[in-house]
Amino acid sequence: MVTATIKLIPAGGVTSAMGFLAGGTYAGLKTPEEGVLDLGILFSERPAALAATFTTSSVVSPSVTLSRARAKSGEARAVVANSGCANCCVGEQGLADATEMAALAAGHLGVDAGQVMVCSTGVIGVELPMALIRQNIGNIELGAGGGGDFARAILTTDTRSKEIAVSFQSGGSGGRRITVGGAAKGVGMIHPNMATMLCFVATDAPVHQPFLRESLVAAVDASFNMIDVDGDQSTNDTVLLMANGVAGGAEIAEGTADSDDFRAALSYVCTELAKELVRDAEGAQRLMEVVVSGANSLKDARLAAREIAGSMLVKAMLHGRDPNWGRMMMALGKSGAAIEESRIDMFINEIQIVHQGMAISFFKDAVVSAMGAPEVQLGIDLNLGDATATAWGCDLTEEYVIFNSAYTT
Amino acid sequence: MVTATIKLIPAGGVTSAMGFLAGGTYAGLKTPEEGVLDLGILFSERPAALAATFTTSSVVSPSVTLSRARAKSGEARAVVANSGCANCCVGEQGLADATEMAALAAGHLGVDAGQVMVCSTGVIGVELPMALIRQNIGNIELGAGGGGDFARAILTTDTRSKEIAVSFQSGGSGGRRITVGGAAKGVGMIHPNMATMLCFVATDAPVHQPFLRESLVAAVDASFNMIDVDGDQSTNDTVLLMANGVAGGAEIAEGTADSDDFRAALSYVCTELAKELVRDAEGAQRLMEVVVSGANSLKDARLAAREIAGSMLVKAMLHGRDPNWGRMMMALGKSGAAIEESRIDMFINEIQIVHQGMAISFFKDAVVSAMGAPEVQLGIDLNLGDATATAWGCDLTEEYVIFNSAYTT
Repeated sequence: MVTATIKLIPAGGVTSAMGFLAGGTYAGLKTPEEGVLDLGILFSERPAALAATFTTSSVVSPSVTLSRARAKSGEARAVVANSGCANCCVGEQGLADATEMAALAAGHLGVDAGQVMVCSTGVIGVELPMALIRQNIGNIELGAGGGGDFARAILTTDTRSKEIAVSFQSGGSGGRRITVGGAAKGVGMIHPNMATMLCFVATDAPVHQPFLRESLVAAVDASFNMIDVDGDQSTNDTVLLMANGVAGGAEIAEGTADSDDFRAALSYVCTELAKELVRDAEGAQRLMEVVVSGANSLKDARLAAREIAGSMLVKAMLHGRDPNWGRMMMALGKSGAAIEESRIDMFINEIQIVHQGMAISFFKDAVVSAMGAPEVQLGIDLNLGDATATAWGCDLTEEYVIFNSAYTT
Repeated sequence: MVTATIKLIPAGGVTSAMGFLAGGTYAGLKTPEEGVLDLGILFSERPAALAATFTTSSVVSPSVTLSRARAKSGEARAVVANSGCANCCVGEQGLADATEMAALAAGHLGVDAGQVMVCSTGVIGVELPMALIRQNIGNIELGAGGGGDFARAILTTDTRSKEIAVSFQSGGSGGRRITVGGAAKGVGMIHPNMATMLCFVATDAPVHQPFLRESLVAAVDASFNMIDVDGDQSTNDTVLLMANGVAGGAEIAEGTADSDDFRAALSYVCTELAKELVRDAEGAQRLMEVVVSGANSLKDARLAAREIAGSMLVKAMLHGRDPNWGRMMMALGKSGAAIEESRIDMFINEIQIVHQGMAISFFKDAVVSAMGAPEVQLGIDLNLGDATATAWGCDLTEEYVIFNSAYTT
């Protein structure tokens, strides 16, 4: 039970919503290993409303360029995604390859190529091996149980796939049950170059496209935009949301009966997948949840929470189980959020360690012990206003450094 | 020889300029060790023009608050600085203690307390042990050879002191010789809380205060503001520049005979001290110099250079001697600087690895071997305009993580 109305679907994923099929295959883009997949398709049996958010980097993969242009139509039938190659920094060939990959997927699915989105993740500066994709894309078998294969096909340095789905019973017309499911892959950087955050969400709700877009932007702002592994941003980051309406009933739009539940379900799916990305970040041993309350504005609360979650010194402090609140204070100070030092209270796993900007005596052993848990909450009350935000980060470990400095040559 | 006119003074430091005395003592603020000092004074025999820059954090030490207010007068006689305690996040006691420390120094020196600046560095959240400072400040023996003791008294986790001085023969009136010397301490974060970047520069040039201020801002923007160890900023960062005019001759101002040489000497001192801070950063094994050329504007060039020098993935790549230019491209993409991917050229130690945004074939062994040097240059030509900027960073090592996650409890 996620909320009173929203329920978690056991072993759910991106094909839990009705009318979505998916599958994956091994095309030879990644090193061959037992069970490895590197090319996947997510397909909606009916035309679906589409909303998307993309990386804000000014160096982008042509796969992003193509999908961003096609997303403007607000609808789609399918996504083809590959791992092993980012299709980035390869000159004009990149756009030609992304276009061909979409066309190959469209041919396999029997749909219009303009309705197929493309995502790539993996090594930068290497062209997509189109011969392998041409040979193997036809091997993708689509099924309602194929969400797991699709989720595996998009992985790079992730150690496990990330899937989730929830559903809720409509409070409005027709007693319909609406499902929202998703799959994602990680943000940690990849050997030998860099990886990408990709997330695919599929719902059988009928959703008015402008509301779909607004709901996605809000959900992404509170989830994927509030996580930090290493402060870097990929050239390929993409979140795609398809709503095919197979659940039936009235279209969901701003203010309609199911709009709050839909937004809550979407936010839950995005937040849980985002946290999964952090948990599986390269070398990470511990998740930190930073909750900033009492801020003057949501913007300030987010700035402060993200700065703390992103600070290398706070990450190292978490790794060392060291209640070094001075580092949290330092991060707050440089965050740009409005603060008054003499009002700040701080907590680690709800144990107060700072009151009105100054240290208070606390039982250190209890805090150190609490910081050994897989998830540690850092709470900061600015005591200025009513705004709250949560950010997630991981600890900085020796393993991260070893992993990311390994010889590739 | 730094330039045709500016010469390095062997073993020079903050008292190389005429009319400056300094000294240091052990007051008990740091763990007692052979030869450790923790309280120092820099004193100008004559009233000196003063320029200063301070941390932009919104959480600041009362030592900064006091010095910032006093710096508005544009003149000073002395600085008293302590290590071992940041005098930060200690409530109202902090300003009282900073004020008293300045008064104690003024009493020892026989000058007006309002002419004494205060700097503190060390642990956050702990009050200055004023009893120890009262007992020991009188032990500071000032001398023209005391720059070295002063430089040692401000150290925290630094492994060595940082001092430099240069001089130039006036091209203008009187044939005077002008000296600019400085001492600094490091930016790496300190056990158990955090440290600070402090820099003190002293010159015997007579300098018009507005020109002194402009010269300092320009020098700091191109030096201390272009280095990155861990992306964090201290509550206590301070750069102070005193010019006492003992060298005699006409006042240096914008456009006067020695103004270019003075600016160049000041920039050299700041840049060399900034690079020394990076070389001595916690756990660092290698200095990276990032030179971005061909940018549309200085602002863009600095944004791009700083983003690359500050990227955890580029830092890790440097540590691993891995010419992963995709990570440099990623950092460029998120820097906010105007770029055109298809124009970007990249070099490692002048060996070209990227041409027009794409990989070119290069002899990898040579690059990997070059990346093993103590200093590695990453060159990025945006091929858009004429602006150039240089930033400095260090590699990210396992030692950094171990150092910064060590138990303090």
